[in-house]
Amino acid sequence: MSITYVTRRVHFNAAHRLHNPAKSDDWNRATFGKCNLPNWHGHNYVLEVTVSGTPDRETGYVIDLAILKRVLEEKIVDVCDHRNLNLDVPFLKGVIPSTENLAVKFWQQLEHEIPRGTLYAVKVFETERNMAEYRGE
Amino acid sequence: MSITYVTRRVHFNAAHRLHNPAKSDDWNRATFGKCNLPNWHGHNYVLEVTVSGTPDRETGYVIDLAILKRVLEEKIVDVCDHRNLNLDVPFLKGVIPSTENLAVKFWQQLEHEIPRGTLYAVKVFETERNMAEYRGE
Amino acid sequence: MSITYVTRRVHFNAAHRLHNPAKSDDWNRATFGKCNLPNWHGHNYVLEVTVSGTPDRETGYVIDLAILKRVLEEKIVDVCDHRNLNLDVPFLKGVIPSTENLAVKFWQQLEHEIPRGTLYAVKVFETERNMAEYRGE
Amino acid sequence: MSITYVTRRVHFNAAHRLHNPAKSDDWNRATFGKCNLPNWHGHNYVLEVTVSGTPDRETGYVIDLAILKRVLEEKIVDVCDHRNLNLDVPFLKGVIPSTENLAVKFWQQLEHEIPRGTLYAVKVFETERNMAEYRGE
Amino acid sequence: MSITYVTRRVHFNAAHRLHNPAKSDDWNRATFGKCNLPNWHGHNYVLEVTVSGTPDRETGYVIDLAILKRVLEEKIVDVCDHRNLNLDVPFLKGVIPSTENLAVKFWQQLEHEIPRGTLYAVKVFETERNMAEYRGE
Amino acid sequence: MSITYVTRRVHFNAAHRLHNPAKSDDWNRATFGKCNLPNWHGHNYVLEVTVSGTPDRETGYVIDLAILKRVLEEKIVDVCDHRNLNLDVPFLKGVIPSTENLAVKFWQQLEHEIPRGTLYAVKVFETERNMAEYRGE
Repeated sequence: MSITYVTRRVHFNAAHRLHNPAKSDDWNRATFGKCNLPNWHGHNYVLEVTVSGTPDRETGYVIDLAILKRVLEEKIVDVCDHRNLNLDVPFLKGVIPSTENLAVKFWQQLEHEIPRGTLYAVKVFETERNMAEYRGE
Repeated sequence: MSITYVTRRVHFNAAHRLHNPAKSDDWNRATFGKCNLPNWHGHNYVLEVTVSGTPDRETGYVIDLAILKRVLEEKIVDVCDHRNLNLDVPFLKGVIPSTENLAVKFWQQLEHEIPRGTLYAVKVFETERNMAEYRGE
Repeated sequence: MSITYVTRRVHFNAAHRLHNPAKSDDWNRATFGKCNLPNWHGHNYVLEVTVSGTPDRETGYVIDLAILKRVLEEKIVDVCDHRNLNLDVPFLKGVIPSTENLAVKFWQQLEHEIPRGTLYAVKVFETERNMAEYRGE
Repeated sequence: MSITYVTRRVHFNAAHRLHNPAKSDDWNRATFGKCNLPNWHGHNYVLEVTVSGTPDRETGYVIDLAILKRVLEEKIVDVCDHRNLNLDVPFLKGVIPSTENLAVKFWQQLEHEIPRGTLYAVKVFETERNMAEYRGE
Repeated sequence: MSITYVTRRVHFNAAHRLHNPAKSDDWNRATFGKCNLPNWHGHNYVLEVTVSGTPDRETGYVIDLAILKRVLEEKIVDVCDHRNLNLDVPFLKGVIPSTENLAVKFWQQLEHEIPRGTLYAVKVFETERNMAEYRGE
Repeated sequence: MSITYVTRRVHFNAAHRLHNPAKSDDWNRATFGKCNLPNWHGHNYVLEVTVSGTPDRETGYVIDLAILKRVLEEKIVDVCDHRNLNLDVPFLKGVIPSTENLAVKFWQQLEHEIPRGTLYAVKVFETERNMAEYRGE
């Protein structure tokens, strides 16, 4: 009865901008600096999703990572890739697309879609230097 | 009395195939897809092993990572490198070599062989995109 | 008199879109696919610039890479980072921002700005999988 | 008329073994060491293919890298991924699958299949530490 | 009230040597091997610092990673970069600069300097293969 | 008669300092900045060596990369690893250990030691961002 954690990495390329529309332009510029520049910038986002569970006796799998990949593609990548995270993604409407908020929102998209095992962690890398993780706490 | 976690990474190159001999060929093909193809495929496996403990006052080490490396080489790398994980490795006999099962079996090989500190985690990367971790739970 | 090639890597994050305004929307969609989506996408661009020359006897340098870094920041990174490559960058006005065109335009920006040695190559990575290089030919 | 070099990276996982069937088992063991072990081993191969040419005025492309990717998948990845390079790949029949020979054979598979620009280089990484490149010389 | 973990990576290049001055030269050589060689060696150190907290409603940030970066630079990088960790760094005086001890000492430097959220983990990579983590336990 | 280029990567950790003893301390500080700091700093150096030649018909090898690795270890790694490049390495005596000079000196150490094929290129990475290459020109 060994609990094992399996992780699948996927990536997508998107534009975004940090901007709180409830605040003034001055506040936004002072708070977000160059991340607030009006004509957008973008990233090669990396998403790492971890599922925990007991390996199935017949397959050795916690979850077939090809199936997990397909879920990630359907729920996240197909909706975000080559899109503008502020304008184009229904489940991000009204959300400031910080890495933290992306991790939480991606978790909510995936939480009930994992066909075997339990969602354990969602990591979003904006760059190799900046990352946010959400574990459903 | 600071608990610290030290990690050593090693790698080995091996062939494998996902196949449950108790099941029909049709079941295996339907379940494992191209991972079941009969003439094997292979990976550059990466193994990351974490040991926890208090740094020794005289050395500053939880465990000398050169010693941990030697343990990993003797118990895992020398037995798995350039081998077929389904056919050649005594401690994997009868085990479907999924990444999950490798992590659990590697843990069992290492558990009583760590000369200082406590085994905390075993991570096995099949590729940069697919990983399994076992923490002895 | 040893000719040596020194390389400095920098990076910037930008939005862009592949679109030829002289063509119809249908042509653009058919030609560029998701890279033509209207609300932009973006990348963590990596720029690697190589300068060739003979190491100076007194310093051992072809060019001080801290100086090369400063040139790259002034001429490229400060102008492109967190910007929209189609809208915001004066030297890219009227240019379709394909990786190829970026490499050529970055070369033209740098060609006469290298204080020691000769510009040899400009590599632009859009992702880890897609790259273009220009060598002034 | 700027000559630019564009590169696309793809990967596949395969089993192989270095063995010259025209030679004795002793010769093979002495020559290839653990790379000759009988039950195969494997790698996460990385293939980087470079095409040179002049960017098209209307697209900014030497070659659409999505098209180059499709060629690499059809001609190389679909035939080699999750296969045994000694047994399963028609264009490698009778070839010792050293990294050098793979680079040459992949070049021959691709040479007349590049729809725009000219094939310039084929790099094959067996691991991060071992690589072979062929440029058609 | 979602607890999120954000990580910022920075790096610095430093010399060091493992040596316990309270012990004999023989003991040091036998214990630390080549890490004890008298004229120092060095590393490209990577430091990854994780802060946990609830994303602020107005910014989406647990902590602005540009601010976290500035703290890491002031407290760690500016003091350690291009220095000798045995001789030059005030907060490492009398400490054997093992990776474990660096992680603990960096934690102590940072613990009360994080302006928002809570310090959660400090990881120090000596190389890509050797790492230590401290979580304040 | 296909000319192929094979590359082997190795690494070593060393201390160094940029300092020209024929010049004043002021000149050195002004020229080399923090790279001149008196108590040394260090790097995880990466060395990539490329050999060109025709693959042998019987082995498929330009050169057995295990043999090339052994040459690199004997001639470079064993002499430089965990050493001070200014003080400890006989073939670097009197040389300012810039990345450029290291590439040229490593070439000279290797030039007549490659048992099959021809030395084609020596690349030295001081960090992931700074690199020098020498090709014997």
